[in-house]
Amino acid sequence: MGSNRTGRRRFLERGVAMAGLAVGAVRTASSQESAPETREVNPKGPYAYGERSRFVTSGRTNDYPKGVFQGMFGPRQNAPLQDVAGIITPAPLHFVRSHSTLPDTDPQKYRLLIHGLVDRPLDFSLEDLKRLPSESRIHFLECQGNSSPGHHAHRKSDFATVQDLHGGTSCSEWTGVPLSVLFKETGLKKGGTWLVSEGADAGRYTYTLPIAKALDDVMVVYGQNGEALRPDQGYPVRLLVPGWEGPYSVKWLRQIKVVDQPYMAWDEAIQHSISRPDLGDKSRWYHFEMPVKSLITRPSGGQTLPGRGFYEISGLAWSGAGVVRRVEVSTDGGRTWKDAKIQGPVHRKAHTRFTLPWSWDGSEVVLLSRATDERSEVQPSLDELSKRWGFSTKETWETADHAFHFNATQRWRVMGDRSIHDAMWS
Amino acid sequence: MGSNRTGRRRFLERGVAMAGLAVGAVRTASSQESAPETREVNPKGPYAYGERSRFVTSGRTNDYPKGVFQGMFGPRQNAPLQDVAGIITPAPLHFVRSHSTLPDTDPQKYRLLIHGLVDRPLDFSLEDLKRLPSESRIHFLECQGNSSPGHHAHRKSDFATVQDLHGGTSCSEWTGVPLSVLFKETGLKKGGTWLVSEGADAGRYTYTLPIAKALDDVMVVYGQNGEALRPDQGYPVRLLVPGWEGPYSVKWLRQIKVVDQPYMAWDEAIQHSISRPDLGDKSRWYHFEMPVKSLITRPSGGQTLPGRGFYEISGLAWSGAGVVRRVEVSTDGGRTWKDAKIQGPVHRKAHTRFTLPWSWDGSEVVLLSRATDERSEVQPSLDELSKRWGFSTKETWETADHAFHFNATQRWRVMGDRSIHDAMWS
Repeated sequence: MGSNRTGRRRFLERGVAMAGLAVGAVRTASSQESAPETREVNPKGPYAYGERSRFVTSGRTNDYPKGVFQGMFGPRQNAPLQDVAGIITPAPLHFVRSHSTLPDTDPQKYRLLIHGLVDRPLDFSLEDLKRLPSESRIHFLECQGNSSPGHHAHRKSDFATVQDLHGGTSCSEWTGVPLSVLFKETGLKKGGTWLVSEGADAGRYTYTLPIAKALDDVMVVYGQNGEALRPDQGYPVRLLVPGWEGPYSVKWLRQIKVVDQPYMAWDEAIQHSISRPDLGDKSRWYHFEMPVKSLITRPSGGQTLPGRGFYEISGLAWSGAGVVRRVEVSTDGGRTWKDAKIQGPVHRKAHTRFTLPWSWDGSEVVLLSRATDERSEVQPSLDELSKRWGFSTKETWETADHAFHFNATQRWRVMGDRSIHDAMWS
Repeated sequence: MGSNRTGRRRFLERGVAMAGLAVGAVRTASSQESAPETREVNPKGPYAYGERSRFVTSGRTNDYPKGVFQGMFGPRQNAPLQDVAGIITPAPLHFVRSHSTLPDTDPQKYRLLIHGLVDRPLDFSLEDLKRLPSESRIHFLECQGNSSPGHHAHRKSDFATVQDLHGGTSCSEWTGVPLSVLFKETGLKKGGTWLVSEGADAGRYTYTLPIAKALDDVMVVYGQNGEALRPDQGYPVRLLVPGWEGPYSVKWLRQIKVVDQPYMAWDEAIQHSISRPDLGDKSRWYHFEMPVKSLITRPSGGQTLPGRGFYEISGLAWSGAGVVRRVEVSTDGGRTWKDAKIQGPVHRKAHTRFTLPWSWDGSEVVLLSRATDERSEVQPSLDELSKRWGFSTKETWETADHAFHFNATQRWRVMGDRSIHDAMWS
């Protein structure tokens, strides 16, 4: 039994063996018998909606520097994944991609029209939708260009953060009506094989979806993380197309038309078709499911470790195919791998938290993770993905603005000076 | 195949048979081929943190009218359960119970001291805690006085809402360090059987906890729904004692002392001991787990149904014992019951969403739900609970301010005029 006066010393000496943890330099300095007076009491009544501690400043950042793509796009913001705990992304920190201005819809006037190749064209008020059978499911949404080297080539610094490079993904509990329920009401005519969905933004954002997916797990959602959708997430109603790239999940949804062929709307052609060396001079137009991916979010680029010793490596993994079955972490640049702990809750097509205990000895190391999903797809290394898609150099990657679905393993280099850098290319 | 011009008519006539849903008067008026121009585009840039649609006003309300208990308590606010979708309660809408003023702690100065009957007294900075092995789990928190008739006897109107009567419960994804991990670091001396935890609020809120529970599933949490705790939820660090009554989950946690006997701190004695007729002239001091409970949140008190026809009845069920196994709903005052659908995600000691399709014929009816948990405990009716606890009349209930853990089924009366009223007592 240790004396009360030897807390710090004994902790440091006996930490590893005693606790089963590779605990090193965790700063546990005080050993006095009474608690230190560190509180600052500022008498205050109930906090207002949206008010955080004044010490908490985590926020979204612009995906592109000012001036880049500004003519084409509305707000584009990345989520601060390095600060997110657990699997839920708070709604006010959810990434944003919009093609034009955000509508300011009066929910009393809102209508969703479903028409085209249906037996009974119908339009639904928000109240109608809320009366119908609902579901709540936890799913990620990810921009199809998230992580794409062509999309962050403008970032010159290797001090880029996980938010800069990969912040175009988020995860929420979504509540709404399965689209299949609405189609039971309207009926579907023979030959109705595709949908065209349109948003109420100024640009009338339009996207096509095969009806097989629509009848599988697509939802018309009005709730996000327990409350109404935020305006930049489609208030009052959006599509939610689980596991597929973000652009399918049309925001401010105002109409769905059932049609007999794929449409090639501006939004899905000019900006969303894929070009890659392996495709030659052709573009790929329809590309659906987001691939298996993982990221170490802590420690990650731009952070500085306080010192040697124990850390929990923590990150997020997800796959459009369903459940993440396995995440491996390497702390030596990929030479050896350990199975990370998959931390509950685990949901299909949802961010999944993984963790691994790690003791840093102070030397330069490269940290990375790779995930495997329920279809046994394994997240590729940059070399593997380059070979598959025909990219020969960093420059060919960076000039390929539309090499979407990039899921190569992200490497973070921890330097001897405790700083952490993007090491994707080195 | 219906003509496009007969949408509304056919929907109403054929709804039930066609869709397998008891759809009645859902207002689906328009049948034109193009979407109505209901949008109001208000060009706007990125929304700030915490900014909602100006049409969304759901918020917390005071648990007591002004003047009641004001001398004793800090902020007390109830969550708008009638507006919450899914199972997650948004952090800014989470219920609040505080005994004094809220601290405004600088996270750089924060320390958690663990001392008393330990081998090595240690104090942890916030950064220390974040470096240690973490867990994220979805759990409810509930005020032990939530729903207690003595606590809402001041509400004279039977038009009270589910927020007024039962809004002292909420559910979050919590992220933090298991307390057992911290005790591995400090070691535990023989005889250390209880904890005394203290908050950094002006009143030094103090509560006792048996160490068996602490080593089971108690967490020291810093994250709620993906972000830092809100100030009124204990920023930067609180205890989270899953399934047990709210007061155990000490906010603004500044010290944990391991002791050899239960302490009877002011906070757990004066305000939190139980008095009931079946206990005679004794008070019950330690009472831990919250019982199985369910509430229909929609339709619920204070709402008005738009008209006859199809509705999804939706509500929340939870139990401190673990998983909710079954929820039954009655739409005839308890004469007959139907199994509700348990809507995923389902977690232990967490709010669980249930739903049941219902067609309202316009007559006066009483809606209620009852839940059964994994221990086969069934939520009691008011009569059953009255017998068990020795309450003979409504008046004895209303004057018993400390008849905590009230979990009788909540009855909502839908009137012919479409209004909905609290029918607990009638």
